[in-house]
Amino acid sequence: MGDIRDRVAVVGTGCAKFGENYDMSIEDMIVAAGFEALEDAGVAPGDIQAAWVGTLNSAFSGTSLGDALKIQNIPITRVENYCASGMDAFRNACFAVASGAYDVALVVGFEKLRDSGARGIPNTRNHPMLAWGVTAPNLFALAANRHFHKYGTTKSQLAKVAVKNHHNGAMNKKAHFQMEIDEETVLNAPLISSPLGLFDCCPTTDGAAAAVICRTDIAKSFRDDYVLVKGLGLAVTSGAPYFKPGFEYDGFPATTLAARQAYEQAGIKNPLEEIDLAETHDCFTITEILNYEDLLFCEKGKGGRFIEEGHSAIGGKLPVNPSGGLKSSGHPIGGTGVRMIYEVTRQLQHRVGDRQVKDAQVGLAHNLGGPGAVGCVTILGNP
Amino acid sequence: MGDIRDRVAVVGTGCAKFGENYDMSIEDMIVAAGFEALEDAGVAPGDIQAAWVGTLNSAFSGTSLGDALKIQNIPITRVENYCASGMDAFRNACFAVASGAYDVALVVGFEKLRDSGARGIPNTRNHPMLAWGVTAPNLFALAANRHFHKYGTTKSQLAKVAVKNHHNGAMNKKAHFQMEIDEETVLNAPLISSPLGLFDCCPTTDGAAAAVICRTDIAKSFRDDYVLVKGLGLAVTSGAPYFKPGFEYDGFPATTLAARQAYEQAGIKNPLEEIDLAETHDCFTITEILNYEDLLFCEKGKGGRFIEEGHSAIGGKLPVNPSGGLKSSGHPIGGTGVRMIYEVTRQLQHRVGDRQVKDAQVGLAHNLGGPGAVGCVTILGNP
Repeated sequence: MGDIRDRVAVVGTGCAKFGENYDMSIEDMIVAAGFEALEDAGVAPGDIQAAWVGTLNSAFSGTSLGDALKIQNIPITRVENYCASGMDAFRNACFAVASGAYDVALVVGFEKLRDSGARGIPNTRNHPMLAWGVTAPNLFALAANRHFHKYGTTKSQLAKVAVKNHHNGAMNKKAHFQMEIDEETVLNAPLISSPLGLFDCCPTTDGAAAAVICRTDIAKSFRDDYVLVKGLGLAVTSGAPYFKPGFEYDGFPATTLAARQAYEQAGIKNPLEEIDLAETHDCFTITEILNYEDLLFCEKGKGGRFIEEGHSAIGGKLPVNPSGGLKSSGHPIGGTGVRMIYEVTRQLQHRVGDRQVKDAQVGLAHNLGGPGAVGCVTILGNP
Repeated sequence: MGDIRDRVAVVGTGCAKFGENYDMSIEDMIVAAGFEALEDAGVAPGDIQAAWVGTLNSAFSGTSLGDALKIQNIPITRVENYCASGMDAFRNACFAVASGAYDVALVVGFEKLRDSGARGIPNTRNHPMLAWGVTAPNLFALAANRHFHKYGTTKSQLAKVAVKNHHNGAMNKKAHFQMEIDEETVLNAPLISSPLGLFDCCPTTDGAAAAVICRTDIAKSFRDDYVLVKGLGLAVTSGAPYFKPGFEYDGFPATTLAARQAYEQAGIKNPLEEIDLAETHDCFTITEILNYEDLLFCEKGKGGRFIEEGHSAIGGKLPVNPSGGLKSSGHPIGGTGVRMIYEVTRQLQHRVGDRQVKDAQVGLAHNLGGPGAVGCVTILGNP
């Protein structure tokens, strides 16, 4: 296997306001995110040679993107990979550019979860996960209880993840919820699936995000402060990890497998020391704690202490979810991975204002997809 | 844009029996196609470094492939691109291998259309095409009537496509229908959407197909008679070409755009002279006639004469659908594109028995997807 490192550059990023976008269709959000990314890269729609779109919504294909942005007659591919749909669309676009097939490509991820009807909520009736009669809060509650039992992790530690991410999100104008919350509010919130309360769960959100990528050797013609792709990891474990005999319930091997691929490509030996910030998949507060461990930021079982000791705060050893994460930004499924690429890129460009991680040079983005089966990790860095 | 030509090789192909597979789940078909391809390449599941799956069925993601074949813990991506889902999965896998990211990858395309229920028919209720109240036979009937009116194409010429493809399919043990039909049967069949009768329409079918690809420089370690990827074209026009003012109804520009990309990559100047066989998207008999023109095998309006004069028969100038095509093999949506890769590869390897195209060295595979918006063209050739 060869090296993808430094061969592809991110030269433009865009993000529609995440939220309850009753006044925006999916096309409106694609336009908002897409044109922001094109403008950011200084390219016209006609300069895009190929595009990738990440969405779970089976009512949308490449035509939706082409029609909305008027980038027709070029190749457009839809990628679906559970909650990693957007980031895997980015990964596939990177391979195509790295292969030399295209010079400049566009990636857009989106989802509209707050509307019902034909153009709204993805039809998940047939989804294997729901066909088993389980929902996401149930599955992650099992992992939380297991972590409590095995490692002594506490509800207060979970709550600190929510407090941190809402604090960060309050500085992010694109976030769904831009409000501070305190630990008491989290702990006293209605239970969703014990031990997870309302504020332990990310919201359902409408949103879209976009990125323009190109071959590194032409990146400077678009922006001086382009960002390089250092590593692209993806791992798919069994579709039913929760139901597999021997599943430990205390982490997601898919994340670690994907992270190891990306670290090897990026030449990262000590993630805690070498990564300056991370956007990780905090669909639930427990997930962020598991992510610390699964991404090898800390030892197995030490995730609760990692948040408690403030290591993941902006200003900490390895700031996690400076954007506010899924918890505060919201989680429009296919949109999330590309929104993370947007955040990490702009952090590395030092363009995010109050939530800026000081001296950020290397950043990581991480999605956990499906029933914990899909781990996707992207590492970006300054040249 | 750079050159993909000759950088990726097909070293293994497999195909489940297409048909009304009540006795096979999707997993069974993935196993049948996948293990045939692995065995054909002489690789073990553990040798596969990454995989792509093409399907329209939103109940299936990469986990379905990993679980069925026990190729877990590696990257698996699902690609969806209407009826070109399988071929676009192949295209994305080729880019990843050409980029150097992986040495050996697997592509599987499948669909199960004959069963109802949670694991059967893809939920297309929300599909933009059906949301407009139109069906595939209606749309292609419009194109047929237009071609009749504008170019004098006849029902008898359409029927000759069905007769040819059933003749070819009768020699293909993997085809859904392995029976000869005569022109009278086609012309006297019940009307589906005038002028298209029952035998002008491809059947709905269950099926899966698979391909193992690798970097060209290691292809010889798998098989001496590996086949090279010469060109990969994809074009997405508007999602609603039929409803666009100015749409001529006499062909699909997406096919021509994709073909021109692939011809340029492959260095093909005169398709009729330089291509030895083609598997094209004959979802309806009129579509194959339009394909002749859109793929530049003949002039616009001359497609009817192309079939009538026998040019597309095995033994003709450019045999089209020696496998029997969608018409006889059937059309399990995500399966079809990869099934075409299977057929073209094995034709170029001279392994298909009675339906062998003599001296085949260069072959083309073509999908038309969605409401005529997606054209996908792959060109394969012997080293």
